[in-house]
Amino acid sequence: MGQSAFLQNVWYVAGFAKDLRPGERIARQFLNQPVVLWRSEGGMAYALEDRCIHRAMPLSSGPVVGEAIRCPYHGLEFAGNGRCSRIPAQDKIPDTAKLRAYPLVERQGLLWIWMGETDKADLGLVPDYPVHDDPRYAWRSSYFHVAGNWQLLVDNLMDLSHLPYIHANTIGGNPDLHFRTKTQSQKLPHGVRVSRHMPDSDPPPTYIAAAGFTGKVDRWQEIEFEPVMIRIHTGACDAGTGAYEGARDHGFSMLGFHGITPETESTTHYFWSMATNILTDGIPDVVFEQTAATFQEDMEVLELQQQRLSAFPDRPLIDIASDVGGRHTRQFIAKCFKKEEIA
Amino acid sequence: MGQSAFLQNVWYVAGFAKDLRPGERIARQFLNQPVVLWRSEGGMAYALEDRCIHRAMPLSSGPVVGEAIRCPYHGLEFAGNGRCSRIPAQDKIPDTAKLRAYPLVERQGLLWIWMGETDKADLGLVPDYPVHDDPRYAWRSSYFHVAGNWQLLVDNLMDLSHLPYIHANTIGGNPDLHFRTKTQSQKLPHGVRVSRHMPDSDPPPTYIAAAGFTGKVDRWQEIEFEPVMIRIHTGACDAGTGAYEGARDHGFSMLGFHGITPETESTTHYFWSMATNILTDGIPDVVFEQTAATFQEDMEVLELQQQRLSAFPDRPLIDIASDVGGRHTRQFIAKCFKKEEIA
Amino acid sequence: MGQSAFLQNVWYVAGFAKDLRPGERIARQFLNQPVVLWRSEGGMAYALEDRCIHRAMPLSSGPVVGEAIRCPYHGLEFAGNGRCSRIPAQDKIPDTAKLRAYPLVERQGLLWIWMGETDKADLGLVPDYPVHDDPRYAWRSSYFHVAGNWQLLVDNLMDLSHLPYIHANTIGGNPDLHFRTKTQSQKLPHGVRVSRHMPDSDPPPTYIAAAGFTGKVDRWQEIEFEPVMIRIHTGACDAGTGAYEGARDHGFSMLGFHGITPETESTTHYFWSMATNILTDGIPDVVFEQTAATFQEDMEVLELQQQRLSAFPDRPLIDIASDVGGRHTRQFIAKCFKKEEIA
Repeated sequence: MGQSAFLQNVWYVAGFAKDLRPGERIARQFLNQPVVLWRSEGGMAYALEDRCIHRAMPLSSGPVVGEAIRCPYHGLEFAGNGRCSRIPAQDKIPDTAKLRAYPLVERQGLLWIWMGETDKADLGLVPDYPVHDDPRYAWRSSYFHVAGNWQLLVDNLMDLSHLPYIHANTIGGNPDLHFRTKTQSQKLPHGVRVSRHMPDSDPPPTYIAAAGFTGKVDRWQEIEFEPVMIRIHTGACDAGTGAYEGARDHGFSMLGFHGITPETESTTHYFWSMATNILTDGIPDVVFEQTAATFQEDMEVLELQQQRLSAFPDRPLIDIASDVGGRHTRQFIAKCFKKEEIA
Repeated sequence: MGQSAFLQNVWYVAGFAKDLRPGERIARQFLNQPVVLWRSEGGMAYALEDRCIHRAMPLSSGPVVGEAIRCPYHGLEFAGNGRCSRIPAQDKIPDTAKLRAYPLVERQGLLWIWMGETDKADLGLVPDYPVHDDPRYAWRSSYFHVAGNWQLLVDNLMDLSHLPYIHANTIGGNPDLHFRTKTQSQKLPHGVRVSRHMPDSDPPPTYIAAAGFTGKVDRWQEIEFEPVMIRIHTGACDAGTGAYEGARDHGFSMLGFHGITPETESTTHYFWSMATNILTDGIPDVVFEQTAATFQEDMEVLELQQQRLSAFPDRPLIDIASDVGGRHTRQFIAKCFKKEEIA
Repeated sequence: MGQSAFLQNVWYVAGFAKDLRPGERIARQFLNQPVVLWRSEGGMAYALEDRCIHRAMPLSSGPVVGEAIRCPYHGLEFAGNGRCSRIPAQDKIPDTAKLRAYPLVERQGLLWIWMGETDKADLGLVPDYPVHDDPRYAWRSSYFHVAGNWQLLVDNLMDLSHLPYIHANTIGGNPDLHFRTKTQSQKLPHGVRVSRHMPDSDPPPTYIAAAGFTGKVDRWQEIEFEPVMIRIHTGACDAGTGAYEGARDHGFSMLGFHGITPETESTTHYFWSMATNILTDGIPDVVFEQTAATFQEDMEVLELQQQRLSAFPDRPLIDIASDVGGRHTRQFIAKCFKKEEIA
């Protein structure tokens, strides 16, 4: 299960850019490390370890002052690169007066943090998510605190077979349709891709409400894992209008972004957004709210699972036939851990 | 003290039969093991380990479906004997797809569970409690969650000397009478029996209210321990009418059943019932309610004791003269532990 | 940091004498040991370990009965010297039936307890605090439970440089004045003394309100540490009227007493009083209330520091120039620890 380990040398989502305004700071723990995220009054976002070098005070309890953050206890100030820039009543600041600074990148509405070895933080490795910048889509975002290990959330999202059970009342739909539909799982160089196509099928209620379908549809579910985030594209077009050849703009699309960032071994930050291509009539809000209700059902599942896993960490789990996507993903993650060990 | 150990090969009370109706399930931890108690729609009661073989989900969060219980995450179903009876979208179910099933017996209004080695679960060893089936008595039952080790509860119930202190305002009565009365403690092959007789004494208020005594009474207190439950018979008859020779039906009887089942080293399930032979005028309810108030006083004591025992697990306890019944019981329990070690 | 250690052979404040009236008892943990403080009906104050020898029940849950405290479970009674004075229904009380009694001294409105080796409890070592008995002063007292190690509280009180930051809105005042003022730190045989003089300066608002200053003042801050308490004398006189030569009665004085008693490694009892020499117009209440609000700000700081210190116990702290008083105090405390190790 890898319950006690985190991948170190990957970019993790630290938050949504819009939730950290100039002059603000957020205390957040990533991979067991306390971090203060803050944005200078000039607008730059930074991540520092959240512990003053002097008396261990969390900097997140102090104010942002210009281009620095100030410890509220004795007034020491630190720049975005971690260097102490002011010690009250002391002229010389030694070179050792320095906090660990975590590389932080702001891109496509997201803040990405690198918790691993600093010299391996390659900007070319930041996952791409152009949807957030694409005017064809409207998106909303949310944050859930998950009382479960991060891999449980990965399992949950890579797995389509729980929909008729956990989400029977929302997006679950007809169990028989789900069981008959074949799941394709494909290993990619940078992750895993799972997809299911339901051609010429009845559209579920949400789809009709959002897109006004009147007949059969070609429906798809496409999920892509890349450490450590997941993109999920679901939707439908009128049957036989080219959805499976890539012509989808005339149909209904839901594009989900899922940033999965470990807080501790048994808790996880879950930053997600939901975008859609129907921009009128309040549809983006409706789609977002239905999604939020659905995800909330999953949160309860993960918390219950974690209770058992914490109580019996060494007992094995048994795979079943429908776990193909989850199994490929766990294998991919195991390979990533292996690589970090060797390096 | 045996603070960290449980007797394994004994029948424990898992609950009252009437509290588990067809189609219902209860999550309960016994001896550190999570168990789901459930009753099929056909009416059979079962106990399974409360952790799905697939993804460790607690089955107690899923529904009972016919003669099976279903995991709410991916829909696996399990029969009362622990075998997996359905895996959605999978034709073959391997023999290893099996949960641990705990022997569960329903008898005399009680559910008895065997947490030890399954092949030693002898139905002949289930403690007998015919009172629950006897039309001469009316009984009520309750459940307390005790924040203390199970042996503290055994001590408490085998001990009559705390009554004038902890229960001064309820059943305590005159301290001097308690101190003058001799306690008899007797080792039995299957347990310990403690008794006290108070011939020709004043009846306490509850007794007068329930049975209308107008003069002196012959009063008795008889307590019997058998791992791990306690039967307590207290009551009185008009003085000189044969109470000590067994003729008691014409007097007032309170028959207490006390099922003591460890949850963890420091918490205990306490299933108890109180029966009486005065069936008119709401007496069974009054007797039950006064008993419940009294037991609640004991719960607070056990919690406070446990706090000190947890903080100083290795410090000894000193016995006093009135501990004779409790001491015999601890000796009996020690012998039971010894037997389990050898076996 | 000495995070995990306590000085043993010192007198600690156990409480204020007036908060323990005849017939009352208080449960309090000192240096990880549970203690019951109680005062007999005759008026003597005692400290015993809070765990009955018989069944580990906390005595603090039982009543004071005459010159004894009684266990509420089975009625055993103990005298102030720890000897068991009564066992119900038992004639002989063995010599071993004895609780640990901690030396307790009542003096100048304070209860002082000795948690270390009993034979080293020298009454001559009880810190002196005549202010509480001096009719020239009126004082009020309070108790705070601190969610931080005791040394964090010592640091906080020996340090004047945090005032313009943490207490900017109360007693902080002008940061520049604080930075310009020189701090004197002096090692004493029995502790450390820190002082600052601000001659011919503007009086802060509280001072004007309390003492009616109309011009410049000679102001002082004098702090004295002695294990494990701190006396703080602050105040001001009209400039040039002899304050620095000891003539202070004509000015305004605030005399703070700070008893610092470890509860656990990460929590501390903080017993403090504030006295003043202006006895009219409700000034003692005003001074006390403003002080309480200020100290409350410090409590939040200590709790936040403790969170980081608990998470990263081995990471070093870096001193800055203004830490001179705190550094001397830590050195003094280290010497005290050393002495206890050798002895």
